[in-house]
Amino acid sequence: MQHLQKLIFDSIENSQFPNQPANLYDPIRYFLSLGGKRIRPTLTLLAADMFDIGEITDALPAAKSIEYFHNFSLVHDDVMDQAPLRRGKQTVHEKWNLSVAILSGDGLLVKAYDELANCNPGYIADLLKTFNRVAMQVCEGQQMDMDYEHADSISMEDYIEMIRLKTSVLLGGALQMGAILADASLHDQKLIYEFGEYIGIAFQLQDDVLDAYGNPETFGKQVGGDILINKKTYLLVKLMEILKEEDRNSLQNLLDSTLSGNPNKLKDMLILYQKYNIKSLADQLKESYTQLAFERLSAIDIPNDKKKALITLSNQLLIREQ
Amino acid sequence: MQHLQKLIFDSIENSQFPNQPANLYDPIRYFLSLGGKRIRPTLTLLAADMFDIGEITDALPAAKSIEYFHNFSLVHDDVMDQAPLRRGKQTVHEKWNLSVAILSGDGLLVKAYDELANCNPGYIADLLKTFNRVAMQVCEGQQMDMDYEHADSISMEDYIEMIRLKTSVLLGGALQMGAILADASLHDQKLIYEFGEYIGIAFQLQDDVLDAYGNPETFGKQVGGDILINKKTYLLVKLMEILKEEDRNSLQNLLDSTLSGNPNKLKDMLILYQKYNIKSLADQLKESYTQLAFERLSAIDIPNDKKKALITLSNQLLIREQ
Repeated sequence: MQHLQKLIFDSIENSQFPNQPANLYDPIRYFLSLGGKRIRPTLTLLAADMFDIGEITDALPAAKSIEYFHNFSLVHDDVMDQAPLRRGKQTVHEKWNLSVAILSGDGLLVKAYDELANCNPGYIADLLKTFNRVAMQVCEGQQMDMDYEHADSISMEDYIEMIRLKTSVLLGGALQMGAILADASLHDQKLIYEFGEYIGIAFQLQDDVLDAYGNPETFGKQVGGDILINKKTYLLVKLMEILKEEDRNSLQNLLDSTLSGNPNKLKDMLILYQKYNIKSLADQLKESYTQLAFERLSAIDIPNDKKKALITLSNQLLIREQ
Repeated sequence: MQHLQKLIFDSIENSQFPNQPANLYDPIRYFLSLGGKRIRPTLTLLAADMFDIGEITDALPAAKSIEYFHNFSLVHDDVMDQAPLRRGKQTVHEKWNLSVAILSGDGLLVKAYDELANCNPGYIADLLKTFNRVAMQVCEGQQMDMDYEHADSISMEDYIEMIRLKTSVLLGGALQMGAILADASLHDQKLIYEFGEYIGIAFQLQDDVLDAYGNPETFGKQVGGDILINKKTYLLVKLMEILKEEDRNSLQNLLDSTLSGNPNKLKDMLILYQKYNIKSLADQLKESYTQLAFERLSAIDIPNDKKKALITLSNQLLIREQ
């Protein structure tokens, strides 16, 4: 797996963009240089390798395409979320301005499609269809996420659908594109896509849990950040769903309070979560989606040792014992 | 030609988008319903027809793709320009908000690529390459336009390059995509592309002239609007290029003044333009580009009567006698 990761890291690092106009291409170079784990393009390469593509470098343009798309969505999401920082560095709209962030994001999206055009022409039509379907769903997920911010409460069904669209379909699509390039059957494409989608939902549920229960030294973000801004994560949506009448006022007071008004906001919320066993429920649901994912992978009729690298990466992502 | 225009109007009017999330798809429907002359997709159909595509409806997805792209760029440009109105109606960021305008613009761009995926698979790779090249150039042109807003002065070369990228390449690309779908040779693709590019530059120069000299009743925008905001059109760029020392202070004072401070700003600028014969120079340059365009069209080795519809539309656009 490591040589695949090196392949994608090198390939993105060596991407060439024109120098002018600097206010279009500098932000693109800057944002791509902020790094990240390059999980999505690695998935494309792993799927291509798993289905025996032959020349793995033939899957590099599709892998880069997925990574550019992911970065496009981050640049625009950062504007919509008014986020000052991304990976500890200034976001594009902060370092430059709003217009530059919109336009360089647009440019990254076009560059994503430009990489698709570099794929073997025989596969471009299929890749384009898969890519477009996923891209539109990611936009839908982002809109739902913004809509839900202003909703009083949302159902668990809506929440899972939102994270499926906003984050999981892209993992599925990344895998499917690798499978397409390796001539996998439509049936196997569907299985590997669903594997990615379920892994993605499990991963997002884990992220929701880690926000409240993660180790501050390794989590990378502020522990409790979601709680402090009343973000509708699995934890809060579930709590609102099963909360008894007797605790409704306590929760409302906590949601209405800020950290400065109530220094115990984080602690008190964790007590409520504890009372309703929310963390276990989240862990169980994460485990269910993980099992659904691995069932799909098992159903793919290729030797097990071919699947090893993908299983290893998934277990790393989901913090499970190998 | 009219049946082709009807084809594209009907096709865009009948576009189906999902209902949910409403804040993603309502703005897309709204913006497309604002209308416009649908010139770019008509060009795609005209080129496809000119090169004998056979079934003209085979070019409809590519034509829609071009129109969606154009609308995507307008939605995002309106944000960057902080424009309150588009075709007399509220812009998307005004009617909804910034985030909705960014995301629904993104969605329109993805939908543009989605229409490309609906084309005959054998042409998709070529169409995608042409589309991406043009799309990236449009982004470059928009960035240059924004950069030039803050520049003290720009050269005529830079100005022409900016309008070439921002507006003309899309006309060329629209025509080239029609030619691709009709199996035109690479040589003919290049000629029809360049025809569109030159027509586009001529059209933009005409637009610059009309801003200052147009008939208020038919121009559709406020006459003198560019002058009042010191927009660097051909007229101003040319004036700054050939202005004599004796008039430097007058121009600077006019640029530093606002309409409220100097009710004669428009009239005084027109006097300066008159002194330096700027309108004639603009008309001459427009005519040069028009000639370059028609030379390219003449060089295409097909019967003249095949070219008639395209010539008619171009003459309408460029307000020339038929």
